[in-house]
Amino acid sequence: MQLRGRWLYTGPMSISTKALQKTGPNEPFQIATIERRDPRADDVVIDIMAAGICHSDIHTIRNEWGQAHFPLTVGHEIAGVVSAVGENVTKWQVGDRVGVGCLVNSCQECEECRAGFENNCLNGAVGTYNSTDIDGTITQGGYAQKIVVNENFVCRIPDSLDFDEAAPLLCAGITTYSPLATWKVSPGQKVAVLGLGGLGHMGVQIAVARGAEVTVLSRSLKKAAVAQSLGATRTLATTEEGFFENHRGEFDFILNTISADIDLSGYLRLLKPRGVMAVVGLPPEAQALKFNALINGRKVLTGSNIGGIAETQEMLDFCAEHGFGARIEKIGVDEVDAAYDRVVAGDVQFRFVIDTSTFPAE
Amino acid sequence: MQLRGRWLYTGPMSISTKALQKTGPNEPFQIATIERRDPRADDVVIDIMAAGICHSDIHTIRNEWGQAHFPLTVGHEIAGVVSAVGENVTKWQVGDRVGVGCLVNSCQECEECRAGFENNCLNGAVGTYNSTDIDGTITQGGYAQKIVVNENFVCRIPDSLDFDEAAPLLCAGITTYSPLATWKVSPGQKVAVLGLGGLGHMGVQIAVARGAEVTVLSRSLKKAAVAQSLGATRTLATTEEGFFENHRGEFDFILNTISADIDLSGYLRLLKPRGVMAVVGLPPEAQALKFNALINGRKVLTGSNIGGIAETQEMLDFCAEHGFGARIEKIGVDEVDAAYDRVVAGDVQFRFVIDTSTFPAE
Repeated sequence: MQLRGRWLYTGPMSISTKALQKTGPNEPFQIATIERRDPRADDVVIDIMAAGICHSDIHTIRNEWGQAHFPLTVGHEIAGVVSAVGENVTKWQVGDRVGVGCLVNSCQECEECRAGFENNCLNGAVGTYNSTDIDGTITQGGYAQKIVVNENFVCRIPDSLDFDEAAPLLCAGITTYSPLATWKVSPGQKVAVLGLGGLGHMGVQIAVARGAEVTVLSRSLKKAAVAQSLGATRTLATTEEGFFENHRGEFDFILNTISADIDLSGYLRLLKPRGVMAVVGLPPEAQALKFNALINGRKVLTGSNIGGIAETQEMLDFCAEHGFGARIEKIGVDEVDAAYDRVVAGDVQFRFVIDTSTFPAE
Repeated sequence: MQLRGRWLYTGPMSISTKALQKTGPNEPFQIATIERRDPRADDVVIDIMAAGICHSDIHTIRNEWGQAHFPLTVGHEIAGVVSAVGENVTKWQVGDRVGVGCLVNSCQECEECRAGFENNCLNGAVGTYNSTDIDGTITQGGYAQKIVVNENFVCRIPDSLDFDEAAPLLCAGITTYSPLATWKVSPGQKVAVLGLGGLGHMGVQIAVARGAEVTVLSRSLKKAAVAQSLGATRTLATTEEGFFENHRGEFDFILNTISADIDLSGYLRLLKPRGVMAVVGLPPEAQALKFNALINGRKVLTGSNIGGIAETQEMLDFCAEHGFGARIEKIGVDEVDAAYDRVVAGDVQFRFVIDTSTFPAE
């Protein structure tokens, strides 16, 4: 194994890095030194500059979804700089500005991988943290100073995007971009974005950039001003009297970003005939669906899970071209526990991003 | 008002016809004489040769869906011959072999009508029976010897299709054709048809004709032989041990024709990533849907409601080109009550069709 890069490795070719780690679901974050794998010929080493905090990180490391492997480092919204490359790496050079999202491996051979849907890998895509990699190790995420990743799971961050505003694009950006692109949301269409959090604020910006007329649907009008600043034409309070009847048949597309129970039939009524509702949030319980809500006007209900690597690159380029990233609040490594509580309380506009330069020196 | 036709009208230009009528949900059918409207300049008069029995007829006239207007004649799978045309009719001539399906009117001006989706008319399409027409009258269906219909809601029955086998295409045919066409089911794809009744047996034939490899999903293997005769490659019993796991990820498309509760998440698991399930049957209760069944592999769940007039014509031409119609059992006008009980019991392969020549002479 040789690495072309700015470092000289000595001894075993493993990479030590400072990382934020929890040893159990109720423990606070602590700064630990973790080992990344020996970089392989097709790996790149990335010096992480910024790591976004996604609600999935919280669900996972608080063990709310079960199956958390402790000690654990989470984080799958990663932006940084390539600091070394394996000998067979062809796509990246030291110094490249890059990002890593929710996936760090897949079989790369199945029908889905070959079609660019590594996220649907039939042999199981490998998540960036708390997943069993193909080599049997448990993956560790991006709340850290370095990560080692196969070059095929890395995307280029356009120069015009800061690391901070780019990091959340790797999950929240692609999660909302992909359904809007898949269903060809286009100029003149009326789009509703349900929920204005980390996902929703990206959905609004992307739908606006695609030329749609965007309405934010939120429990109250509290976020109307910020919704407007993101490009939304209006905000509607879903709690208003007669909401579902008043806005019946208005929308071509609804992007549902919330993870709570919803009146599915009611929201489907808001769609025009042949309209589409894409869900990207996961309520804990099953939702009640009357089939006539789909049959009358032949509505479409679908879900979307992040996106493939090529599409993630397309999304980054799209955001750069249209001049926006995520709107973020930057925090230090000692503020993550508090930030988690604020995310759960919905008290962030719109993403916390960890400044990895705040890890203490040796 | 002038009619070009083989009849000479005298007196008021209304059309009397023998029809099967119920005076209440629990009354037997009786033969009555009903009046059709005075044919208008853009109307055609059709001598009905065959009328299919759709399960919706039963739900409606037994008042299981509420809102039945008695006395009522049902039937929206109508095949016959044009016997007179209004003076402005341009599409039809006396003697043309034609069909009428579930729709007899719509605004013909809204976005949906103009896009060929009269079935989604934003001002409310007018059903062939038990609907309030634009002139305020309640429509009466096709279990009759004559019907008067606007020329734009009439389709041509290709010469190679018998009236009997063509009649059910006007509802069961288009209901299954439209989702298979909309979602571009194509050669090489694996399609599952859930339920093998009036709808399912059309779905199988149409999917096979589109080049798909078709599997019938049924509670038992009782219908395996007839499924094979319709072109299905295999039949699977959904009650088999481990059914949902054994057939996980097999299908590109599932056409769900049943009107009973189903394990939605289980069936969605049978789809490949990005697969589509279209529902055309209406279970009385809401179905439980966990969003992860849509999000993982970004599955699509949609519903479909018959089709527009142009697409109905396309379907008739498609069936004729591929040499199949509905498989039917022909009955006389005195057998309809008994036939209803057999439909409810699932005891028909696959559609009863009323031979309107069995109406008694004056």
